[in-house]
Amino acid sequence: MMVNNDLSESIIFPKGNKVEGPLASVFTGDAWVEMLVTDEKFNCPVYNVTFEPRGRNNWHSHPGGQILLVTGGRGWYQEDGKPGRELKPGDVVKIPSNVKHWHGAAKDSWFTHLGITTNPEKGDAKWFETVTDEEYNKLDS
Amino acid sequence: MMVNNDLSESIIFPKGNKVEGPLASVFTGDAWVEMLVTDEKFNCPVYNVTFEPRGRNNWHSHPGGQILLVTGGRGWYQEDGKPGRELKPGDVVKIPSNVKHWHGAAKDSWFTHLGITTNPEKGDAKWFETVTDEEYNKLDS
Repeated sequence: MMVNNDLSESIIFPKGNKVEGPLASVFTGDAWVEMLVTDEKFNCPVYNVTFEPRGRNNWHSHPGGQILLVTGGRGWYQEDGKPGRELKPGDVVKIPSNVKHWHGAAKDSWFTHLGITTNPEKGDAKWFETVTDEEYNKLDS
Repeated sequence: MMVNNDLSESIIFPKGNKVEGPLASVFTGDAWVEMLVTDEKFNCPVYNVTFEPRGRNNWHSHPGGQILLVTGGRGWYQEDGKPGRELKPGDVVKIPSNVKHWHGAAKDSWFTHLGITTNPEKGDAKWFETVTDEEYNKLDS
């Protein structure tokens, strides 16, 4: 399979560090995260996330919701029980509170999005099971 | 002066409509705004703003602060009484509550940023005087 390894169009914001340690256990494949805004005065954590091809996070939910702003590559967003939504640069994903979902790269492309944790005072993300290869492969076949 | 009119690299998010009506009175030159997130549940208005070369907004402040995420072109951010900060894609500007400032394009480039109004429950932006040509021309000479 051809893979677009040219991230020159994708890297607008800093790529940051590869996810390692406990957080890596809720990813399939490699991902990189750069925190862009952490100051609590803003009450608005903002970060840049980059996934390698086939890279994705586990099913999870956010008590206060999340916004994704796609800046590079091609990827997927899926809510539990729904078909996947293909994502390209310029797409905006509005993830309601407590909706179980995952996001990640397409099979043949890197994928980069900004993320905003909304209403962060409502608590941290809740992490669930891995998105299996069987689930993932259905999306892009 | 050479002007980079190629916005193909800048338009990641929708350009939206040209600012008209009362809001146009607090801009110098033309600007375009697309609201990306307005749902009050997120408590996090997100928008894409595009300025033509030399386009800028008036001096203003935000009671709850604002975050800018630069996605295209070249521009400026300036806080009252401080030197201007040149902005390029990938730059993040964290604007504290009630700090008087302006942002806009460079003389020779279009400029596009995402904006996030943080702590929006604290109220709407307060608008002040125009950034004069004298103030503006000092930045990039």
